[in-house]
Amino acid sequence: MRVGYVQFEPRFGEVKRNIGRAIEMMGSERADLWVLPELFSTGYLFVSREELMGLAEPVPEGPTTQALLDFSRKANATVVAGLAERAGDKVYNAAVIVGPAGLIGRYRKIHLFGKEKLWFDPGDLPLEPMDLGGVKIGVMICFDHFFPETARTLALRGAQILCHPANLVLPGMGQLSMRVRAMENRVFAVTANRIGGEARGGEELRFTGESQIVAPEGAVLLRASPEGEEVGVVEIDPEKALDKRVTRYNDLFADRRPEFYGA
Amino acid sequence: MRVGYVQFEPRFGEVKRNIGRAIEMMGSERADLWVLPELFSTGYLFVSREELMGLAEPVPEGPTTQALLDFSRKANATVVAGLAERAGDKVYNAAVIVGPAGLIGRYRKIHLFGKEKLWFDPGDLPLEPMDLGGVKIGVMICFDHFFPETARTLALRGAQILCHPANLVLPGMGQLSMRVRAMENRVFAVTANRIGGEARGGEELRFTGESQIVAPEGAVLLRASPEGEEVGVVEIDPEKALDKRVTRYNDLFADRRPEFYGA
Repeated sequence: MRVGYVQFEPRFGEVKRNIGRAIEMMGSERADLWVLPELFSTGYLFVSREELMGLAEPVPEGPTTQALLDFSRKANATVVAGLAERAGDKVYNAAVIVGPAGLIGRYRKIHLFGKEKLWFDPGDLPLEPMDLGGVKIGVMICFDHFFPETARTLALRGAQILCHPANLVLPGMGQLSMRVRAMENRVFAVTANRIGGEARGGEELRFTGESQIVAPEGAVLLRASPEGEEVGVVEIDPEKALDKRVTRYNDLFADRRPEFYGA
Repeated sequence: MRVGYVQFEPRFGEVKRNIGRAIEMMGSERADLWVLPELFSTGYLFVSREELMGLAEPVPEGPTTQALLDFSRKANATVVAGLAERAGDKVYNAAVIVGPAGLIGRYRKIHLFGKEKLWFDPGDLPLEPMDLGGVKIGVMICFDHFFPETARTLALRGAQILCHPANLVLPGMGQLSMRVRAMENRVFAVTANRIGGEARGGEELRFTGESQIVAPEGAVLLRASPEGEEVGVVEIDPEKALDKRVTRYNDLFADRRPEFYGA
């Protein structure tokens, strides 16, 4: 199974251009599963709920999901992509999971970061892995990585590959944390981070790139540069993520002792 | 508050010598809180339950705890030290926490690694922070780091400093993981790892050193070499670990969403 990330620089508000650029980049290599950054089609730094509502889209009717469905069908690939989802009067920092046969599912970020709390509604869907014909993926968005419970919950429920659309701003921290998320859960992890910067509403952010693909033992299989637009694809065997043994005597899931855990 | 690690090479079975060496090293610098490696007074690679039972000690009556109590009183310091604890017909990979006024508490490793499962009983005490006169510490031993629930439980219950006696064998992995444990819980973390090797019972292990002290934001404040006997001491402000904010909008504990977590 070939899994990949698209690392690029969305331009704020230029939805059509951003979709085109992401699809162009995915077209440059062959992968079975692509991960795109968080909010890849809109950009990140909204300055009001109204602005966000104006750019957010219903799923699957909106142009972003429709374009990805079209790509997915033609390329025979699954795509996990971060986007702003409008649902009635709610709006989510979400991800869609689309495959050749249609929309597979959606995820809505449960741990909002910084000013996202001002504009977005908190995620309201369970952390449930999605089945891609025998391989289960788990979706989490950016800051979700900071909470070990996110990856743990997805992995305990069967996720073999963590798909992690991101707009990481703290250099190296998300990348470090996702290595440990892979290691402690014995799963693969694909982080698609964006690059470049945004300066809007009196705030300025630089995004840190270094998208990466990590193996279940924590090794970084591939890592992008901090500043370039790049796709990266690695061939993995997702079956490996079903084996939680770290020594002859230790299985990371069987060894858990939940009776000792808790607040 | 000055916190430190002792990184040294215990000699298997030479309990008196190992105690003396550790106390000599602690005597070379001033600290308020010392962390010693896992099983520091016995060594690691037991070949039978009988051998382990012969070297394990009751707490606090045994020579290791008694010597540490004596040091602690004289140095006016708290010591967290890994040792083999015998309790009736049970034996634990344990840690004692001793202060100038006496035994503060004990911890028994809940996640046993490799052949430890053949010789030791699994820990049966709750993950409960211990109060050092206003500063709370949490104790976890070596492989416990692999399970995010260990540090999480201690931190949610108030631990400001994770004290982590270790005999780490996978190069860099425990050190990486403990940075993330500090970061995700916004606490300090002191890992005291041993160095050198043991070859017993047809098995050979090399221990990886690189003891470290990590700050709540994940920065490594101090790290020892992979192979030298060293003490390392850093002045920290444990109050910092009470503040779980990572942005103006985000508090790592308040932002948790337990209703979404679980197996």
